[in-house]
Amino acid sequence: MEQDERFMNEALREAREAADAGEIPIGAVVVWKGRIIGRGHNQTERLRDTTAHAEMIAITAATEAMGGKYLTDCTLYVTVEPCPMCAGALAWSQIGRIVYGAPDQRRGFSLFSPSLLHPRTAVTGGVLMEPCAALMLDFFRAKR
Amino acid sequence: MEQDERFMNEALREAREAADAGEIPIGAVVVWKGRIIGRGHNQTERLRDTTAHAEMIAITAATEAMGGKYLTDCTLYVTVEPCPMCAGALAWSQIGRIVYGAPDQRRGFSLFSPSLLHPRTAVTGGVLMEPCAALMLDFFRAKR
Repeated sequence: MEQDERFMNEALREAREAADAGEIPIGAVVVWKGRIIGRGHNQTERLRDTTAHAEMIAITAATEAMGGKYLTDCTLYVTVEPCPMCAGALAWSQIGRIVYGAPDQRRGFSLFSPSLLHPRTAVTGGVLMEPCAALMLDFFRAKR
Repeated sequence: MEQDERFMNEALREAREAADAGEIPIGAVVVWKGRIIGRGHNQTERLRDTTAHAEMIAITAATEAMGGKYLTDCTLYVTVEPCPMCAGALAWSQIGRIVYGAPDQRRGFSLFSPSLLHPRTAVTGGVLMEPCAALMLDFFRAKR
């Protein structure tokens, strides 16, 4: 639990970088054996690429770092519940565990069935939910 | 219809390139105003990246070519029904239309609900289904 909060704080740090750049503030890190092997924050505006989500960037970096295809022994920490695209990518990566902060009641993967995840992927939601959600709320309020 | 077959043949050409490289033989092209602006074939083995699907590569190339974020006036042709990850990416791209060849009865996006696609995306399945499916069958038979 303490470790989960520690790594979620690292994901939050990524999310704040996104916010500072005017991007939707979502951040992610991938952890293997207590070490961060991939980081990412949303960059859809800067890259003008609607698929440049925090998770996609972090997964690709982690896969590269592992020198291999699968992330079976890794955990993804992400500030907001992943969308179906990212959940699908996480399924293909066979990631061992997903920890997210705030739920996404509009496009979160858990709204879809059958499950979009790999059957062996464990999920924990709600870790540091409040700061994760607050970043999003502040961003969208400022946009109005 | 004739135009659909013409562009599906281009997607099949991409799929054959994947097969020749020992990759799962799926190919895709993105078309805008009768012109191909993005192509891709599955490269998960070569790139050692489980997200390097034909559609992801073609969408990123097309988005780049459009110099913008959305593919509203574009059609994606792909030899096999997209998976949830690719359907999610197509949703974010707001693509106008998806044309696929063979259905994927295990991981095809149409198996999931609510719909993984953007509400304004039109879908046509079964275009040149037989050659699209035959490529996949040949590949998996040869693997045994």
